[in-house]
Amino acid sequence: MSEQLAPTTSPPAPPASYEPTDRTVPTRSRERASYDRELVHAILDEGYVCHLGFVRDGAPVVLPTLYGRVGERLYVHGSTGSRPLRAAGQADPGLAVCLTVTHVDGLVLARSAFHHSINYRSVVVHGTALQVTDPEEKRLALDALVDHVVPGRSADSRPADAKELAATAVLRLDLREVSAKLRTGGPNDEPRDLALPHWAGVLPVHTAHGTPVPSADQDPAVPVPDYLTAL
Amino acid sequence: MSEQLAPTTSPPAPPASYEPTDRTVPTRSRERASYDRELVHAILDEGYVCHLGFVRDGAPVVLPTLYGRVGERLYVHGSTGSRPLRAAGQADPGLAVCLTVTHVDGLVLARSAFHHSINYRSVVVHGTALQVTDPEEKRLALDALVDHVVPGRSADSRPADAKELAATAVLRLDLREVSAKLRTGGPNDEPRDLALPHWAGVLPVHTAHGTPVPSADQDPAVPVPDYLTAL
Repeated sequence: MSEQLAPTTSPPAPPASYEPTDRTVPTRSRERASYDRELVHAILDEGYVCHLGFVRDGAPVVLPTLYGRVGERLYVHGSTGSRPLRAAGQADPGLAVCLTVTHVDGLVLARSAFHHSINYRSVVVHGTALQVTDPEEKRLALDALVDHVVPGRSADSRPADAKELAATAVLRLDLREVSAKLRTGGPNDEPRDLALPHWAGVLPVHTAHGTPVPSADQDPAVPVPDYLTAL
Repeated sequence: MSEQLAPTTSPPAPPASYEPTDRTVPTRSRERASYDRELVHAILDEGYVCHLGFVRDGAPVVLPTLYGRVGERLYVHGSTGSRPLRAAGQADPGLAVCLTVTHVDGLVLARSAFHHSINYRSVVVHGTALQVTDPEEKRLALDALVDHVVPGRSADSRPADAKELAATAVLRLDLREVSAKLRTGGPNDEPRDLALPHWAGVLPVHTAHGTPVPSADQDPAVPVPDYLTAL
């Protein structure tokens, strides 16, 4: 495996933080912004879908899509016939995108309507998405996409064959211009509101998993895999 | 209350479906698209954050933000100093946006890597966001934003005062060019893969709420409100 394809295993380690840019420094609530690489990775790795933004005919388009991470590279995929994938293949040097992942952690109830909020963690990535043409990188990206949904799953499924690989377009977006933003804690009520008779606090929110539902054509002799029950 | 401000209560009822446009008809998986008004409303009402896309200096920007719905209008809000809000106030006739809401309902594990997917419901709204200047509509929008997070909460909190209203910018986006997209059910494996020894099926995913955490300065005599425990 070439060094280029496996940046996670290639020393030296990248700096602990991403470099802020004009686009990644918020105009307000700057104390909520972070450029910490580990935090960014953790937020990205916890999500199932990202929201991918691009410009078509001068107007913004935001589509939910699966993604995967390999070191400092994000991958999204789609049919070779889908609009963003076609656009990225035709654009030179690539497609300008903004990729955002958000987790809602709590509903913040303040005494005043004005101070209602949510606790959240988000990552915003700006950059240019490039179509992956190298077959080995494409396979690595598709494994990462499957393992992003269920860690360990790519090794327990039939890999894509040549026809499936040809039908799938993969875009790569390097993690260079990146920021995280997060809000934690309780409501920030005005001192004059503290005596008001309204309950104030946080209702925690999280993502939960139900009981695995086997496919209708599933051989009952095949057990639910450990990596699934572990989620 | 003027009819203009309360479209939900104004007969006649809108058509049962949104009119498809070039932007809302997908290039593929058309069977997953829907224009059903009730379905669109239900998906919108279930979300906590939307992903709002707009174009800045020719590049896409996608930010997570709270939103609320009043009939056929969506509202988002922010500081009058935030970038999208300022841009919408300066743009004529408004800011071109794409607003997307997505729910992940399940992880779909197929025998082949290629057929892995997720079950989801999403809504994509294209349009022009306009800054709300009418004070009555602004109040209605802010109530909708609070009630979107916790239904019933706006009546149990201190309404925004003049200073808070002035510091808050509200954008309106009409539901005109709208589509839903959804995937349900199990994996669509190739017939030749059915005998492979990999478990196949769906791991359900849903949003769950924890136990309400009172604010540190909360008077313990104030009970957790019923509308919160009902969530």
